[in-house]
Amino acid sequence: MARTETFGAHYRIMNGRTSAGDKVYDIDRWLLRSFLNGIGEPQIRAMLWDGKEVFRPDSTCSVGMAIHDRATLLRLIANPLLNFGDDYSAGRIEIDGDLVVFMEAIYRAMDKKRRSARLAAYRRKQPDTNSLAGSHSNIHHHYDIGNDFYQLWLDREMLYTCAYFPQPTSSLEDAQIAKMDLVCRKLRLKHGQTVVEAGCGWGAMARHMARHYGVSVRSFNISHEQIVYARERAKAEGLDGQVEYVEDDYRNISGCYDAFVSVGMLEHVGPKHYLELGKVIDRSLTESGLGLIHTIGQNIPQPMSPWLLKRIFPGSYPPTLREMMDIFEPFGLSVLDVENLRLHYAKTLEHWLDRFENNRERIADMFDESFVRTWRLYLSGAIANFNIGNLQLFQVVFTRPRNNQVPWTRSHLFGAPAEV
Amino acid sequence: MARTETFGAHYRIMNGRTSAGDKVYDIDRWLLRSFLNGIGEPQIRAMLWDGKEVFRPDSTCSVGMAIHDRATLLRLIANPLLNFGDDYSAGRIEIDGDLVVFMEAIYRAMDKKRRSARLAAYRRKQPDTNSLAGSHSNIHHHYDIGNDFYQLWLDREMLYTCAYFPQPTSSLEDAQIAKMDLVCRKLRLKHGQTVVEAGCGWGAMARHMARHYGVSVRSFNISHEQIVYARERAKAEGLDGQVEYVEDDYRNISGCYDAFVSVGMLEHVGPKHYLELGKVIDRSLTESGLGLIHTIGQNIPQPMSPWLLKRIFPGSYPPTLREMMDIFEPFGLSVLDVENLRLHYAKTLEHWLDRFENNRERIADMFDESFVRTWRLYLSGAIANFNIGNLQLFQVVFTRPRNNQVPWTRSHLFGAPAEV
Repeated sequence: MARTETFGAHYRIMNGRTSAGDKVYDIDRWLLRSFLNGIGEPQIRAMLWDGKEVFRPDSTCSVGMAIHDRATLLRLIANPLLNFGDDYSAGRIEIDGDLVVFMEAIYRAMDKKRRSARLAAYRRKQPDTNSLAGSHSNIHHHYDIGNDFYQLWLDREMLYTCAYFPQPTSSLEDAQIAKMDLVCRKLRLKHGQTVVEAGCGWGAMARHMARHYGVSVRSFNISHEQIVYARERAKAEGLDGQVEYVEDDYRNISGCYDAFVSVGMLEHVGPKHYLELGKVIDRSLTESGLGLIHTIGQNIPQPMSPWLLKRIFPGSYPPTLREMMDIFEPFGLSVLDVENLRLHYAKTLEHWLDRFENNRERIADMFDESFVRTWRLYLSGAIANFNIGNLQLFQVVFTRPRNNQVPWTRSHLFGAPAEV
Repeated sequence: MARTETFGAHYRIMNGRTSAGDKVYDIDRWLLRSFLNGIGEPQIRAMLWDGKEVFRPDSTCSVGMAIHDRATLLRLIANPLLNFGDDYSAGRIEIDGDLVVFMEAIYRAMDKKRRSARLAAYRRKQPDTNSLAGSHSNIHHHYDIGNDFYQLWLDREMLYTCAYFPQPTSSLEDAQIAKMDLVCRKLRLKHGQTVVEAGCGWGAMARHMARHYGVSVRSFNISHEQIVYARERAKAEGLDGQVEYVEDDYRNISGCYDAFVSVGMLEHVGPKHYLELGKVIDRSLTESGLGLIHTIGQNIPQPMSPWLLKRIFPGSYPPTLREMMDIFEPFGLSVLDVENLRLHYAKTLEHWLDRFENNRERIADMFDESFVRTWRLYLSGAIANFNIGNLQLFQVVFTRPRNNQVPWTRSHLFGAPAEV
């Protein structure tokens, strides 16, 4: 499996190219060592283009990095948060051992150094690019690259958000269905109710709600490819009378609904727009309506890595719970329930990465080898971030402050007898 | 039951006193009407000392207020948030109908007017009085007034915090035991573990944990009366080998524990001291330790009523979730679970108020009639605040950011089979 690469592959790539210089000078070794010491001495081995190990903080390091040439080394030192990813994608940096373990080692080291001026300088305040037009462009960048591609590694319902594994050994297909059920139960959906969905991906949640809970759903999304797929599938499954997919921004939601649901959209909203989202919720919920937001989050506010912002998710940001209160507090909305599913996202991503790797040759044919490496790094880095607790997954249930028609306990989430 | 008073009682009080003036002038009626219009036209009837109704915004008003004399009227207008309570306690304001319904009507009206300059002027920024010495004095004020008194209306385990009613019809005794079990399950307590408790009341939680979960507990409290009671009871129940009650401030907690628990103390900590509390938690939790804070909260930050601060709970403040993040965020602590038990607190308080009223004659003998009225108003106002959603009850579970030994799902809270 390609997650576990070897330096052997690296040498083959190096041998097929013109390297910046065959010779490794003492200054190169000094630069690499200083750099790795500076980012917190990650538990990794490191070597330069002569194949000799330069850095090994611990004899037990199971992962390593090989740098192809001097230009790559200098780029890495100049801006590691951006250039590590780009040079990995281009094959100028190779990883020996499990990429997830490697990324965990890097993140752990950087976390130790988090408050140091040096790393802070690499991370700049994240600009807001989520105007109506900006969001459209940001979403297009990631979600409109081809439904065929996503079908290769997502579950058959095409959910591209954290699943809920009733048991750690549950399958991804079961876990995505369990996630949809968990959301429906948290919203206490009842036959005949109306639901509005902000950000619907390929539409699975809306179809599940309509099919299994007998509700009518209006789902908003600005990804054209996803909307086309969602509409076709709803029609094929005879659900188009109950589900309406609207190709429009969440800010243009109109009408009043028994439930508001948003799974995996808040990451793309941007903190400066949380008040607008709160306004949308405030005008969309009936007096006894329940709402649920499912989002990647953080314990401490930190901007996204510049590489992820540039190559994978432009305009994205995972909020802290404190930041999420900008949605609820101005409208006095009452938070009823928060569940943190962090380790479920690590597991979801592991399933995706396995399926991705199993299809890497087809994906390389659809795009190119650099694309495969870019996405491998993104998925592996995400697993690492969830595993070590840099990222969280929050499901937040809320309602209007005066609504007393709220679930009495949470026993309904587990199939226990309904309370009085 | 005294919650449902009648104006008849009011007239008897009036007849036994010298009123400020028998005659009601037009200016008195105008002042009362203007005042009630100014606080948002509460759905109450109102009359002055001649017994004639002056204000009735709606023919369906089931509750009313009678003001005994002109001085009371002027005090009410000058500072309603402080003087309504004091004049009610002194019997110079009488309520016709259910006091809880009356308070709900007042709070609903004030909420409509919340942003008006007039009411804002009544509420000032709450001073911090929770230094080590300040906290001692604040806690002494409320909790050291006599264990005999609290035994008259709390459950037999002496829990003075929100219960958890598995069914709305559960008894208070059962609901308090269910609450303790819920907390223990959320903390996943295991035999042989160690627990530190910040603020332990009369010690019921520590005894329950020791008896039913086989853990050792160190409980901190600065109420001398409570500590004396807790120690005696632990000894009588043979739990003094497992439970240690320490008469000291939470800021002096030392040692390292598998669990941190604090039920109903955060209300007395004050937002300026949340960072200190976070430091205590950060130094007290083992690497895989879980923590739980159970506290009254709010959706929107508002200071406590000055009457409650002065007469009932000096130095107290119910935080918003955003404000609570001052405990967790500086230390990167990970919030795993938030549950809002607002309506459970309304129900808990209803049980307490019923028991309180059933013992009002004994309580009047222990203190005096004014004390009975003060506490009746405090308990009734609290029911109203929870009923209409001005107050929340948050249970927050947290852990260290790197701890992956966290519960996989929440099914263990409901007696479902444990997951792998």
